[in-house]
Amino acid sequence: MQKKINFRIATERDLDRIVEMLADDELGRKRERYEQPLPESYKKAFQAITSDPNNELIVANQDNEVIGVVQITFTPYITHQGGWRATIEGVRTTAYVRGKGVGTELINWAIQRAKNRGCHLIQLTTDKIRVDALHFYERLGFKATHEGLKMKLE
Amino acid sequence: MQKKINFRIATERDLDRIVEMLADDELGRKRERYEQPLPESYKKAFQAITSDPNNELIVANQDNEVIGVVQITFTPYITHQGGWRATIEGVRTTAYVRGKGVGTELINWAIQRAKNRGCHLIQLTTDKIRVDALHFYERLGFKATHEGLKMKLE
Repeated sequence: MQKKINFRIATERDLDRIVEMLADDELGRKRERYEQPLPESYKKAFQAITSDPNNELIVANQDNEVIGVVQITFTPYITHQGGWRATIEGVRTTAYVRGKGVGTELINWAIQRAKNRGCHLIQLTTDKIRVDALHFYERLGFKATHEGLKMKLE
Repeated sequence: MQKKINFRIATERDLDRIVEMLADDELGRKRERYEQPLPESYKKAFQAITSDPNNELIVANQDNEVIGVVQITFTPYITHQGGWRATIEGVRTTAYVRGKGVGTELINWAIQRAKNRGCHLIQLTTDKIRVDALHFYERLGFKATHEGLKMKLE
Protein backbone atom coordinates (compact mmCIF):
# COMPACT_ATOMS: atom_id res chain seq x y z
CA MET A 1 0.00 0.00 0.00
CA GLN A 2 1.29 3.44 -0.85
CA LYS A 3 2.22 5.64 2.07
CA LYS A 4 0.04 8.65 2.63
CA ILE A 5 0.83 11.79 0.65
CA ASN A 6 0.12 15.23 2.09
CA PHE A 7 -0.33 18.39 0.09
CA ARG A 8 0.46 21.87 1.35
CA ILE A 9 1.51 25.36 0.27
CA ALA A 10 5.26 25.43 -0.40
CA THR A 11 7.55 27.37 1.91
CA GLU A 12 10.87 28.93 0.98
CA ARG A 13 12.62 25.91 2.51
CA ASP A 14 11.06 23.76 -0.26
CA LEU A 15 12.36 25.92 -3.08
CA ASP A 16 15.64 24.07 -3.55
CA ARG A 17 13.86 20.74 -3.97
CA ILE A 18 11.28 22.31 -6.30
CA VAL A 19 13.95 23.69 -8.63
CA GLU A 20 15.80 20.37 -8.48
CA MET A 21 12.61 18.60 -9.66
CA LEU A 22 11.92 21.15 -12.39
CA ALA A 23 15.47 20.78 -13.70
CA ASP A 24 15.37 16.96 -13.66
CA ASP A 25 13.19 16.80 -16.75
CA GLU A 26 13.50 16.39 -20.53
CA LEU A 27 12.64 20.06 -21.18
CA GLY A 28 13.59 21.47 -17.79
CA ARG A 29 17.26 20.56 -18.02
CA LYS A 30 17.59 22.88 -21.03
CA ARG A 31 16.06 25.88 -19.33
CA GLU A 32 16.53 25.67 -15.55
CA ARG A 33 19.64 26.39 -13.48
CA TYR A 34 19.79 24.13 -10.46
CA GLU A 35 22.92 25.22 -8.64
CA GLN A 36 24.08 26.38 -5.20
CA PRO A 37 23.24 28.99 -4.20
CA LEU A 38 20.00 29.05 -6.18
CA PRO A 39 19.85 31.91 -8.70
CA GLU A 40 18.08 34.97 -7.22
CA SER A 41 15.44 34.85 -9.98
CA TYR A 42 13.91 31.72 -8.43
CA LYS A 43 13.67 33.40 -5.02
CA LYS A 44 12.06 36.50 -6.51
CA ALA A 45 9.50 34.39 -8.37
CA PHE A 46 8.78 32.45 -5.18
CA GLN A 47 8.11 35.70 -3.31
CA ALA A 48 5.86 36.97 -6.11
CA ILE A 49 3.85 33.72 -6.11
CA THR A 50 3.41 33.48 -2.37
CA SER A 51 2.40 37.14 -2.01
CA ASP A 52 -0.32 36.77 -4.68
CA PRO A 53 -3.63 35.39 -3.34
CA ASN A 54 -4.44 34.08 -6.85
CA ASN A 55 -1.34 31.89 -7.06
CA GLU A 56 -0.57 28.80 -5.02
CA LEU A 57 2.59 26.74 -5.22
CA ILE A 58 1.71 23.31 -3.85
CA VAL A 59 4.05 20.51 -2.82
CA ALA A 60 3.31 16.83 -2.27
CA ASN A 61 5.00 15.31 0.79
CA GLN A 62 5.65 11.74 1.79
CA ASP A 63 7.76 10.77 4.81
CA ASN A 64 8.80 14.43 5.21
CA GLU A 65 10.19 14.44 1.66
CA VAL A 66 8.92 16.74 -1.09
CA ILE A 67 8.06 14.40 -3.97
CA GLY A 68 5.90 16.57 -6.22
CA VAL A 69 5.03 20.13 -7.14
CA VAL A 70 2.33 22.03 -9.02
CA GLN A 71 1.51 25.72 -9.35
CA ILE A 72 -2.16 26.70 -9.52
CA THR A 73 -3.23 30.13 -10.76
CA PHE A 74 -6.80 31.33 -10.19
CA THR A 75 -8.01 33.90 -12.73
CA PRO A 76 -11.27 35.86 -12.95
CA TYR A 77 -12.49 36.29 -16.53
CA ILE A 78 -15.36 38.16 -18.12
CA THR A 79 -15.94 35.18 -20.46
CA HIS A 80 -18.25 32.33 -19.38
CA GLN A 81 -20.46 34.86 -17.58
CA GLY A 82 -17.64 36.06 -15.40
CA GLY A 83 -16.26 32.66 -14.45
CA TRP A 84 -13.07 31.90 -12.56
CA ARG A 85 -10.56 29.43 -13.99
CA ALA A 86 -7.70 27.47 -12.52
CA THR A 87 -4.55 26.99 -14.56
CA ILE A 88 -1.98 24.41 -13.59
CA GLU A 89 1.66 24.65 -14.55
CA GLY A 90 5.08 23.36 -13.58
CA VAL A 91 3.85 19.88 -12.61
CA ARG A 92 6.64 17.52 -11.60
CA THR A 93 7.17 14.48 -9.44
CA THR A 94 10.52 13.29 -8.25
CA ALA A 95 12.21 10.52 -10.25
CA TYR A 96 11.92 7.69 -7.71
CA VAL A 97 8.14 7.94 -7.39
CA ARG A 98 7.26 8.17 -11.09
CA GLY A 99 4.73 5.61 -12.27
CA LYS A 100 3.39 5.14 -8.74
CA GLY A 101 0.32 7.34 -8.99
CA VAL A 102 1.76 10.40 -7.25
CA GLY A 103 1.10 12.61 -10.28
CA THR A 104 -2.50 11.43 -10.38
CA GLU A 105 -2.98 12.28 -6.71
CA LEU A 106 -1.33 15.66 -7.24
CA ILE A 107 -3.57 16.63 -10.17
CA ASN A 108 -6.69 15.30 -8.47
CA TRP A 109 -5.79 17.43 -5.46
CA ALA A 110 -5.44 20.48 -7.74
CA ILE A 111 -8.83 19.73 -9.34
CA GLN A 112 -10.46 19.60 -5.90
CA ARG A 113 -8.71 22.82 -4.90
CA ALA A 114 -10.02 24.52 -8.07
CA LYS A 115 -13.55 23.39 -7.21
CA ASN A 116 -13.18 24.70 -3.67
CA ARG A 117 -12.11 28.06 -5.07
CA GLY A 118 -15.27 28.16 -7.22
CA CYS A 119 -13.63 27.66 -10.62
CA HIS A 120 -15.82 26.43 -13.47
CA LEU A 121 -12.83 25.18 -15.47
CA ILE A 122 -9.34 23.86 -14.90
CA GLN A 123 -6.82 24.05 -17.72
CA LEU A 124 -3.21 23.51 -18.65
CA THR A 125 -0.99 23.32 -21.69
CA THR A 126 1.51 20.58 -22.36
CA ASP A 127 4.29 20.58 -24.95
CA LYS A 128 3.31 18.39 -27.92
CA ILE A 129 6.60 16.51 -27.54
CA ARG A 130 5.39 15.23 -24.14
CA VAL A 131 3.15 12.51 -25.58
CA ASP A 132 2.95 10.59 -22.30
CA ALA A 133 1.87 13.72 -20.45
CA LEU A 134 -0.98 14.28 -22.90
CA HIS A 135 -2.26 10.74 -22.30
CA PHE A 136 -1.83 11.14 -18.55
CA TYR A 137 -4.04 14.25 -18.50
CA GLU A 138 -6.59 12.69 -20.85
CA ARG A 139 -6.91 9.70 -18.52
CA LEU A 140 -7.65 12.15 -15.71
CA GLY A 141 -10.52 13.65 -17.72
CA PHE A 142 -8.95 16.63 -19.50
CA LYS A 143 -9.93 17.18 -23.15
CA ALA A 144 -7.37 18.44 -25.68
CA THR A 145 -9.89 20.80 -27.29
CA HIS A 146 -7.49 23.73 -27.73
CA GLU A 147 -4.26 24.63 -29.43
CA GLY A 148 -1.69 26.04 -27.03
CA LEU A 149 0.21 28.89 -28.67
CA LYS A 150 3.35 30.51 -27.28
CA MET A 151 5.65 33.31 -28.33
CA LYS A 152 9.03 33.96 -26.74
CA LEU A 153 9.68 37.62 -25.98
CA GLU A 154 13.08 39.29 -26.00
CA MET B 1 -6.13 55.16 -44.11
CA GLN B 2 -7.44 53.57 -40.95
CA LYS B 3 -8.38 55.94 -38.15
CA LYS B 4 -6.21 55.82 -35.09
CA ILE B 5 -7.00 53.19 -32.46
CA ASN B 6 -6.30 53.84 -28.80
CA PHE B 7 -5.86 51.19 -26.14
CA ARG B 8 -6.66 51.66 -22.46
CA ILE B 9 -7.73 49.82 -19.30
CA ALA B 10 -11.48 49.13 -19.41
CA THR B 11 -13.79 50.97 -17.02
CA GLU B 12 -17.12 49.70 -15.71
CA ARG B 13 -18.86 51.85 -18.35
CA ASP B 14 -17.28 49.63 -21.03
CA LEU B 15 -18.58 46.38 -19.54
CA ASP B 16 -21.87 46.33 -21.46
CA ARG B 17 -20.05 46.65 -24.81
CA ILE B 18 -17.48 44.07 -23.78
CA VAL B 19 -20.13 41.48 -22.96
CA GLU B 20 -21.97 42.32 -26.18
CA MET B 21 -18.78 41.59 -28.15
CA LEU B 22 -18.09 38.37 -26.25
CA ALA B 23 -21.64 37.17 -26.93
CA ASP B 24 -21.51 38.03 -30.65
CA ASP B 25 -19.32 35.07 -31.48
CA GLU B 26 -19.63 31.50 -32.70
CA LEU B 27 -18.79 30.04 -29.27
CA GLY B 28 -19.75 33.04 -27.15
CA ARG B 29 -23.41 32.99 -28.10
CA LYS B 30 -23.74 29.54 -26.50
CA ARG B 31 -22.21 30.53 -23.20
CA GLU B 32 -22.69 34.26 -22.56
CA ARG B 33 -25.83 36.11 -21.41
CA TYR B 34 -25.95 39.55 -22.95
CA GLU B 35 -29.12 41.08 -21.48
CA GLN B 36 -30.27 44.18 -19.60
CA PRO B 37 -29.45 44.58 -16.84
CA LEU B 38 -26.20 42.65 -17.20
CA PRO B 39 -26.06 39.56 -14.97
CA GLU B 40 -24.32 40.33 -11.66
CA SER B 41 -21.66 37.68 -12.36
CA TYR B 42 -20.12 39.90 -15.06
CA LYS B 43 -19.89 42.85 -12.69
CA LYS B 44 -18.31 40.73 -9.98
CA ALA B 45 -15.72 39.38 -12.44
CA PHE B 46 -15.00 42.91 -13.63
CA GLN B 47 -14.35 44.02 -10.04
CA ALA B 48 -12.10 41.02 -9.42
CA ILE B 49 -10.08 41.74 -12.57
CA THR B 50 -9.65 45.45 -11.98
CA SER B 51 -8.66 45.00 -8.34
CA ASP B 52 -5.93 42.49 -9.27
CA PRO B 53 -2.62 44.10 -10.29
CA ASN B 54 -1.79 40.97 -12.33
CA ASN B 55 -4.87 41.22 -14.55
CA GLU B 56 -5.64 43.89 -17.12
CA LEU B 57 -8.80 44.15 -19.19
CA ILE B 58 -7.90 46.26 -22.22
CA VAL B 59 -10.25 47.87 -24.74
CA ALA B 60 -9.48 49.22 -28.21
CA ASN B 61 -11.18 52.55 -29.01
CA GLN B 62 -11.82 54.28 -32.29
CA ASP B 63 -13.95 57.45 -32.58
CA ASN B 64 -14.98 57.01 -28.94
CA GLU B 65 -16.37 53.55 -29.70
CA VAL B 66 -15.11 50.35 -28.05
CA ILE B 67 -14.24 48.07 -30.96
CA GLY B 68 -12.05 45.41 -29.35
CA VAL B 69 -11.20 43.73 -26.05
CA VAL B 70 -8.50 41.49 -24.60
CA GLN B 71 -7.67 40.34 -21.09
CA ILE B 72 -4.01 39.98 -20.15
CA THR B 73 -2.94 38.01 -17.07
CA PHE B 74 0.61 38.32 -15.75
CA THR B 75 1.82 35.29 -13.80
CA PRO B 76 5.06 34.66 -11.92
CA TYR B 77 6.29 31.07 -12.29
CA ILE B 78 9.17 29.11 -10.81
CA THR B 79 9.75 27.49 -14.22
CA HIS B 80 12.07 29.17 -16.75
CA GLN B 81 14.29 30.38 -13.88
CA GLY B 82 11.44 32.22 -12.25
CA GLY B 83 10.08 33.91 -15.36
CA TRP B 84 6.86 35.90 -15.70
CA ARG B 85 4.38 35.03 -18.44
CA ALA B 86 1.54 36.91 -20.02
CA THR B 87 -1.61 35.00 -20.96
CA ILE B 88 -4.17 36.51 -23.28
CA GLU B 89 -7.82 35.52 -23.27
CA GLY B 90 -11.24 36.73 -24.35
CA VAL B 91 -9.99 38.45 -27.51
CA ARG B 92 -12.79 39.96 -29.59
CA THR B 93 -13.29 42.73 -32.10
CA THR B 94 -16.68 44.15 -32.99
CA ALA B 95 -18.35 42.80 -36.17
CA TYR B 96 -18.05 45.91 -38.37
CA VAL B 97 -14.26 46.17 -38.03
CA ARG B 98 -13.39 42.52 -38.62
CA GLY B 99 -10.84 41.92 -41.37
CA LYS B 100 -9.48 45.46 -41.03
CA GLY B 101 -6.43 44.74 -38.93
CA VAL B 102 -7.88 45.77 -35.57
CA GLY B 103 -7.24 42.33 -34.08
CA THR B 104 -3.63 42.50 -35.22
CA GLU B 105 -3.16 45.90 -33.58
CA LEU B 106 -4.81 44.63 -30.41
CA ILE B 107 -2.57 41.57 -30.11
CA ASN B 108 0.56 43.53 -31.01
CA TRP B 109 -0.37 45.99 -28.28
CA ALA B 110 -0.73 43.09 -25.81
CA ILE B 111 2.67 41.70 -26.87
CA GLN B 112 4.29 45.10 -26.25
CA ARG B 113 2.53 45.36 -22.88
CA ALA B 114 3.84 41.90 -21.92
CA LYS B 115 7.38 43.00 -22.81
CA ASN B 116 6.97 46.16 -20.76
CA ARG B 117 5.90 44.05 -17.79
CA GLY B 118 9.07 41.96 -18.16
CA CYS B 119 7.44 38.74 -19.39
CA HIS B 120 9.66 36.24 -21.21
CA LEU B 121 6.69 34.55 -22.89
CA ILE B 122 3.19 35.38 -24.07
CA GLN B 123 0.69 32.58 -24.51
CA LEU B 124 -2.92 31.77 -25.27
CA THR B 125 -5.12 28.84 -26.12
CA THR B 126 -7.62 28.80 -28.96
CA ASP B 127 -10.39 26.28 -29.54
CA LYS B 128 -9.40 23.85 -32.32
CA ILE B 129 -12.68 24.61 -34.08
CA ARG B 130 -11.47 28.22 -34.58
CA VAL B 131 -9.22 27.42 -37.55
CA ASP B 132 -9.02 31.05 -38.71
CA ALA B 133 -7.96 32.17 -35.23
CA LEU B 134 -5.09 29.66 -35.23
CA HIS B 135 -3.80 31.02 -38.53
CA PHE B 136 -4.26 34.60 -37.31
CA TYR B 137 -2.06 33.96 -34.27
CA GLU B 138 0.52 32.02 -36.29
CA ARG B 139 0.84 34.97 -38.69
CA LEU B 140 1.55 37.16 -35.66
CA GLY B 141 4.42 34.89 -34.64
CA PHE B 142 2.85 32.49 -32.13
CA LYS B 143 3.84 28.81 -32.40
CA ALA B 144 1.30 26.06 -31.74
CA THR B 145 3.79 23.98 -29.79
CA HIS B 146 1.40 22.89 -27.04
CA GLU B 147 -1.83 21.02 -26.53
CA GLY B 148 -4.43 23.06 -24.65
CA LEU B 149 -6.31 20.82 -22.23
CA LYS B 150 -9.47 21.81 -20.36
CA MET B 151 -11.76 20.16 -17.87
CA LYS B 152 -15.15 21.54 -16.89
CA LEU B 153 -15.81 21.47 -13.16
CA GLU B 154 -19.20 21.04 -11.57
